Amino acid sequence: MVQVAILGFGTVGSGVAEVLTQNADAIARKAGGDVRVKYILDTRDFPDSPFSDLVVHDFSVIESDPEVQVVAECIGGATVAYDFVRRSLLAGKHVVTSNKEMVAAHGYELLSIAREKNVNFLFEASVGGGIPILRPLAVCFSANEISEIYGILNGTTNYILTKMINEGADFDEVLREAQAKGYAEANPAADVEGPDACRKICILSALSFGRHVYPESVHTEGITGITTQDIAFAEKANMKVKLLGRAVKTDDGKVVCYVSPHFVPASAQIARVDDVFNGIVVRGNAVGETMFYGRGAGKLPTASAVVADIIDAINHAGQRKNIFWEDADPAMQGDYQALEQCWFVRTDAKEAEIAASLPGAKLLGEVDGQVGVLTGPMSLNALLESGLHMMGRIPVL
Amino acid sequence: MVQVAILGFGTVGSGVAEVLTQNADAIARKAGGDVRVKYILDTRDFPDSPFSDLVVHDFSVIESDPEVQVVAECIGGATVAYDFVRRSLLAGKHVVTSNKEMVAAHGYELLSIAREKNVNFLFEASVGGGIPILRPLAVCFSANEISEIYGILNGTTNYILTKMINEGADFDEVLREAQAKGYAEANPAADVEGPDACRKICILSALSFGRHVYPESVHTEGITGITTQDIAFAEKANMKVKLLGRAVKTDDGKVVCYVSPHFVPASAQIARVDDVFNGIVVRGNAVGETMFYGRGAGKLPTASAVVADIIDAINHAGQRKNIFWEDADPAMQGDYQALEQCWFVRTDAKEAEIAASLPGAKLLGEVDGQVGVLTGPMSLNALLESGLHMMGRIPVL
Repeated sequence: MVQVAILGFGTVGSGVAEVLTQNADAIARKAGGDVRVKYILDTRDFPDSPFSDLVVHDFSVIESDPEVQVVAECIGGATVAYDFVRRSLLAGKHVVTSNKEMVAAHGYELLSIAREKNVNFLFEASVGGGIPILRPLAVCFSANEISEIYGILNGTTNYILTKMINEGADFDEVLREAQAKGYAEANPAADVEGPDACRKICILSALSFGRHVYPESVHTEGITGITTQDIAFAEKANMKVKLLGRAVKTDDGKVVCYVSPHFVPASAQIARVDDVFNGIVVRGNAVGETMFYGRGAGKLPTASAVVADIIDAINHAGQRKNIFWEDADPAMQGDYQALEQCWFVRTDAKEAEIAASLPGAKLLGEVDGQVGVLTGPMSLNALLESGLHMMGRIPVL
Repeated sequence: MVQVAILGFGTVGSGVAEVLTQNADAIARKAGGDVRVKYILDTRDFPDSPFSDLVVHDFSVIESDPEVQVVAECIGGATVAYDFVRRSLLAGKHVVTSNKEMVAAHGYELLSIAREKNVNFLFEASVGGGIPILRPLAVCFSANEISEIYGILNGTTNYILTKMINEGADFDEVLREAQAKGYAEANPAADVEGPDACRKICILSALSFGRHVYPESVHTEGITGITTQDIAFAEKANMKVKLLGRAVKTDDGKVVCYVSPHFVPASAQIARVDDVFNGIVVRGNAVGETMFYGRGAGKLPTASAVVADIIDAINHAGQRKNIFWEDADPAMQGDYQALEQCWFVRTDAKEAEIAASLPGAKLLGEVDGQVGVLTGPMSLNALLESGLHMMGRIPVL
């Protein structure tokens, strides 16, 4: 029998307890023996929960109990959670987590401690919720040189953009509706400004290209600036507006990692990932293009990924060598402003000015007195140097 | 250094040699040391190949060489390949393969020998080419009770159906074109009659539900009977015709596994998997619905999956416990004819007859003097007992 401690009894933590209980037989079969929750750490008590007897308030009880082999961190954030995860690993326990903020901030350090202690530090649930992506990346694509990975990594913003596209509604209106439905937080900044997607693309980039990427070094634009005009121009161009996190290897061997809304061809598989769903595209030199699709959040999808990591940690008593990366190297990070891509530009300039500033650009006609333009491949630096007065600009995938 | 023998130097075998060579540095990093091809077994010689020195004609050279730790079987078929794989496992070597025919026919026996010898028998490339699906199923969904798995598992038939849908062309015409382009074999039966998809759904079902499924026990219908009328009726119903392999758990705990064309709602993610691409949908009780998408065949995608298995075998010297299933149990296999689903029916009967035979069914109007009908949920047995004269019938997903 393997004993587990769950840190934090919120949405994910209670989901983990539920999945471990409901699917106990299947899990025992796959883990080669029973998996039992011994402790649940929370500041609160849960007198009405069937797990109330397991609740403890002092982390050191877990830290010092040699019977606890696996710790499932479900607290979130990068302060208390980080401290407890570090101490768990140092105490020789496997740690599994869905905490993208902590992994994006401290992944390299925590993986290094895990390696030193020969235990697992696994975090499949931190990206894409229940969609398997980190393990396939690390294991199934190990024979590929990955050239690019991008995805719709945040369900809330994808829901908002889908509504804006399908109903012609504006951002503020759809955001209020999403908040009323519980799809968006009262303070929606982590979703709509992009930091959530940023943390996830940092983790995907690290695993794909072998080096930690710190979120503060990543160009991050959310969707708060997307207007109904942008949506209308996208439709004219037979494209859709999607918020993507993207990490792409450039010819000089550097990796450019960034988050931005994109114009995406309507025929692309990723354009068809709608509502709260996530989709992640991986390009490898041998496998070509593959996509992973599913619910990127939610109590049970996320909990099922955490529990799968628990089972995997039990089955691989030593650390999994293939889930590891080196520390960040600023010299290997490419400059977003220098990345060559096509651009959509919204402007109030006249046709002659546009032709002079961006020779060869394609006009998309007028919406509400503004003109839409599609450029050829050029860097953001070159676009800014063109001198054209822009009311909005969005890269084209 | 780990030494590998490649059995068969056809499309996949030469792709494996190529990937191992081209991506040697990345592979060495991930496998913890160099991976070198020591032998290539083939009946032919390849004087012009850079690998010509490695070619041997006698399998016993490989079998008796203790330096060969991993055998990559790329011969295909279930006769010679089966003999060599069995002997390789019995000699204590890991075996990786893309051979779906052999795994579907002998998977349980070969997995049992591998378990006994504590070596790996891995076959990620046998389903979905380079798309990671078997390992995610075994590892990432281990906390789920899987209720259903289905997919577009054969690229050739998906290419043909996509052409029929987009161009209104008929089956024979598109097949000839696909043969001319090299997308379909001169003898296309293994694709168009369904056996290729059948082998793949057998493997997916075994891994999802824990028991071998022998292809000869699986109801298998291909696409040779699909007419332009079927395609036209599907469009009227806002659906698409897709060939699916499907394994679904029914309320009595049995699993119904079958291959058939389906009417699929045009809005479903799987309906948007077109041309030679594959897509596989997994439903779990915790994760909900996820989909895996990519190229299901081709030299390099398939080879990259074989090589990833080589790396995984090296990294997990003992057998992976989670890639295993028990022998078939006919008592656990549900009856396709008793499975309740909605049906599309094409008939020359009059409206009154249809209403009498299938009360409540929805009419899709007429095409070429035939009437299209959508029924409610009912078994094929009940549909056949209705007495309606049917010119075609297709289950609705």
